[in-house]
Order: sequence, then structure tokens, then C-alpha cells
Amino acid sequence: MHLIVDGYEADYQKLIDLDFIYNILDVTPEKISMTKIMPPYVFKYHGKNPEDWGLSGFVLIAESHISIHTFPEKRYLNIDIFSCKVFDSEAAIKLMKDNFSINKTQIKLLERGIEYPHNIEKASNIVSLERCQLQATKTS
Amino acid sequence: MHLIVDGYEADYQKLIDLDFIYNILDVTPEKISMTKIMPPYVFKYHGKNPEDWGLSGFVLIAESHISIHTFPEKRYLNIDIFSCKVFDSEAAIKLMKDNFSINKTQIKLLERGIEYPHNIEKASNIVSLERCQLQATKTS
Repeated sequence: MHLIVDGYEADYQKLIDLDFIYNILDVTPEKISMTKIMPPYVFKYHGKNPEDWGLSGFVLIAESHISIHTFPEKRYLNIDIFSCKVFDSEAAIKLMKDNFSINKTQIKLLERGIEYPHNIEKASNIVSLERCQLQATKTS
Repeated sequence: MHLIVDGYEADYQKLIDLDFIYNILDVTPEKISMTKIMPPYVFKYHGKNPEDWGLSGFVLIAESHISIHTFPEKRYLNIDIFSCKVFDSEAAIKLMKDNFSINKTQIKLLERGIEYPHNIEKASNIVSLERCQLQATKTS
């Protein structure tokens, strides 16, 4: 299950705060019942144009990951929460919206590995259900 | 642009080779015109069940990333190539299929940040084009 959250009109101060993003990557896995397998890494990036900069952070969890890329001057960020297990996507979305005071989101929830020879139907049902629940929040 | 490749029936020996995956993460950014902002990290993961293990690696590139998660006992792997820029997704797909001798793939190509106030139409056109080109390889 791969939750993709693109957030607009987020809080500038949070998008530029390396320690803040490190902490989110550090505590979020446990909050959504995932197991970290390394400490997070967060880096600052500067492009050629002065407004082209941001923070990029990553934490590996058991056979999956959470990543965050911020674009402070656009008050925009990308969040990916990817797990081989099913997790509470609604809780994760709320957590991230609150973390960064995101005003507008674009959300995608992907099924992955659906050709696994076992548990396919079950996983597919759960993801379909999650998807239905997401319709309400999708354009919020 | 976010390219998602889930690969089945891949080469077991490659899925268990940490140095091999490190090297792929190290050289791929340049091959698809991206800029690394840190060296890659690759970790081995062991779950509760003996068959539940694999390698997870990632490399941060300018405001984006490449990640690989392998599930050797299932001969399965997940690859994400996510960039704020448009890149040659067909070349990237071919590269990854060749790297891991993947026999069957599920591919998704996502547009992200499409609400940016500039370059939207252009980016959208390019991604639509890429998508059309992908139809042929999608179920290969």
C-alpha cells in the first residue's frame, strides 16, 4: 500500500525546519504501526535558482519507506508512505496535514504487489475500502 | 513525475546482492540526468518469518529520490523513481528491467504537483505522451 500526499499552502516555517522534519520521520513509523530499520536522514538541497531549494528526508521501515520533500518557496511538499503492509491511511493523512498545516492536498492510494499469489483478494478489498473512504478527503 | 515499477520473477542472485543494489542507486541518477545529493544507503531487513527478508535502498537526488525494496524469496521488488523534473521513463524502465532481469512488471507513472501555477500544461502534455508510450510495455 502506497500513500502519496502532495500538499499545498503548507506552513513555510515547518517546511524549512530540518529538525522538525527529522522528528516527523523519527516518530511517524511507530504512530502507524511500522518498524524503523534505520534512523532518518534529512538533507538540504539548493538548485541553480535561488528559489529552488528545499529539504529532503527519508526513513526506511521494514521493506518500505517514508519520504518527504519540501519546496518552501512554493509552500509545497511531497510525502510518500509506502509499506508492504496495510496501514491506516486516513490516520496517516490527518497526521501529515496537521504536521505541516497543509491547506490543500492531492492524495493517491496505490495498490502494489497485487500479483502476489496470496492474500490478494483480501488486500484488494481493504484498499478498495480505504479508497472509498478517501473520496471525501481527496479534494479537501 | 513519479515512476513506479513493481517487478516479478526477477533474478534471485541480484535481489540478495547489497553491493549490486548500492551500485545501481549510485550510477542510475546520472544515467537519467539527475543529481545525487548524498551517497546511497542500502540495508538488509529480517522479519519474523524466515522468508520475510530483503534489501532496502535509497538515494536522494535533487528534491526527489530513487528507492528499491527487494523480496528475494518472492523474486519480487519495488522500484520508485521520483523527480520534480520530467525524465525519460522508458529508459529508466528498460534500465531497471535489465538490471534485475525482471520478467514481468507492473508500471505506474504519476503526475505530481500538477497544481503548480506554472508549466502545468507543458508537464501534463509530456506525461500524457509518456503514458501513451508506456501502454505497450505496461503488461510486458
